[in-house]
Amino acid sequence: MCELLGMSANVPTDIYFSLSGLIPRGGQTGPHKDGWGITFYEGMGCRTFKDPQACCESPVARFVQEYPIKSEAVIAHIRQANRGVVSLENTHPFTRELWGRNWTYAHNGQLTGYEHLPTGFYSPVGQTDSEHAFCWLLNRLQEKYPQPPQDWRGVFHDIILLADELRQFGVFNMLLSDGRYVLAYCSTNLHWITRRAPFGKARLTDSDVEIDFSQHTNPDDVVSVIATQPLTGNEQWQKINQGEAVLFHYGERIDSLL
Amino acid sequence: MCELLGMSANVPTDIYFSLSGLIPRGGQTGPHKDGWGITFYEGMGCRTFKDPQACCESPVARFVQEYPIKSEAVIAHIRQANRGVVSLENTHPFTRELWGRNWTYAHNGQLTGYEHLPTGFYSPVGQTDSEHAFCWLLNRLQEKYPQPPQDWRGVFHDIILLADELRQFGVFNMLLSDGRYVLAYCSTNLHWITRRAPFGKARLTDSDVEIDFSQHTNPDDVVSVIATQPLTGNEQWQKINQGEAVLFHYGERIDSLL
Repeated sequence: MCELLGMSANVPTDIYFSLSGLIPRGGQTGPHKDGWGITFYEGMGCRTFKDPQACCESPVARFVQEYPIKSEAVIAHIRQANRGVVSLENTHPFTRELWGRNWTYAHNGQLTGYEHLPTGFYSPVGQTDSEHAFCWLLNRLQEKYPQPPQDWRGVFHDIILLADELRQFGVFNMLLSDGRYVLAYCSTNLHWITRRAPFGKARLTDSDVEIDFSQHTNPDDVVSVIATQPLTGNEQWQKINQGEAVLFHYGERIDSLL
Repeated sequence: MCELLGMSANVPTDIYFSLSGLIPRGGQTGPHKDGWGITFYEGMGCRTFKDPQACCESPVARFVQEYPIKSEAVIAHIRQANRGVVSLENTHPFTRELWGRNWTYAHNGQLTGYEHLPTGFYSPVGQTDSEHAFCWLLNRLQEKYPQPPQDWRGVFHDIILLADELRQFGVFNMLLSDGRYVLAYCSTNLHWITRRAPFGKARLTDSDVEIDFSQHTNPDDVVSVIATQPLTGNEQWQKINQGEAVLFHYGERIDSLL
């Protein structure tokens, strides 16, 4: 299995604190030593830093921690390989273009019997069940909307229905973003929290790190974080129920969709 | 205009030396201060480090120099913007999937009247002529080969013909790779060199850096480097003629194609 981390914010925000909670789980306090990756959106563009090494030993991870990129949408993943060898092409997140936007995806879980799912125009590069499922999902979206859609919430509703189908093949926790929206789909474990004024202090459970968010934020900031397991011990994280999803748009949860 | 840098090698090789020659041209000894990027292939996978900042000031560029990733195919680009604002989504190289392989592309030049070229399934994310041309090129290839082709040299011959078409719209110097092959297409300026045993010393023209390749190589190593302008002063670089291309496969030039 793997661990997921996502962020959605209404202003470009660095993810330094949450990342400091995730990285030890990549081979130190957790067993996920088979690679890791993180994608930062900056407007329409995005950039991914990834490494097939354990992230607790990865020079790229150290760099990303020391050089806090500010972003409105982030997706990160640390991997414990089940399907597909440990290699760069099997390292999440995966990014593909659809409707002139970059879509980024990371998966936690394991699927069985997925191999026949048609991926159409999108061919997997690596050997993971995860990338195969992503290609299938994008292909289905492209078939339904050959032209760029207007109703984005409707699109995310469709994505949730597609994720429901994928969940029939096994464990399917997913983070997906187009840079504006961040969707968290839960099959077994996924938690989220929204931080807004008045900001307080938080302490990581995996590292001896505490932060006072009031020192690093403006009163209007809204930042949501999604993680497989809560990253802090002194805050109230929400667990997403099995088969349910939470959609964020620039930090704010969208309720009406679900 | 921009500067291009590519590498093709028969063993995973770091590009530290050549990159040290390119980076000063990104805002220091050269005017290309509008972003830079580099893609490293490792097997079927690839990873891109990019930054819309001038690379002479980019923390990401410093990191890439200090952490030499070994690769058999590299494509790098430093940008002086003409079409498209300075932003991450307009920063080369661009990578898209075709036939289950990652294709990476960088362009030096400027096109006019290209906007009507159909891009089919591949939509540009940014606003550059370069990415539009790349999408058009991949779409044409996908139309000709709906299924993964067998004759790869034939595919690169087709790519050269497509580049000939793009050259009708302006200046079109291009580097393109699928991780095994690196194609250099010249519209105005592109130079290459192949280094093999017996290895000697080389000195950069843009930095006070000298290397003795015999200290860093094995006798069987074959490494080709492609750059807009020669990076060293004491070696014999080959200029590619206008409208011609050179194809490399794991370090070796392929003659028979052209």
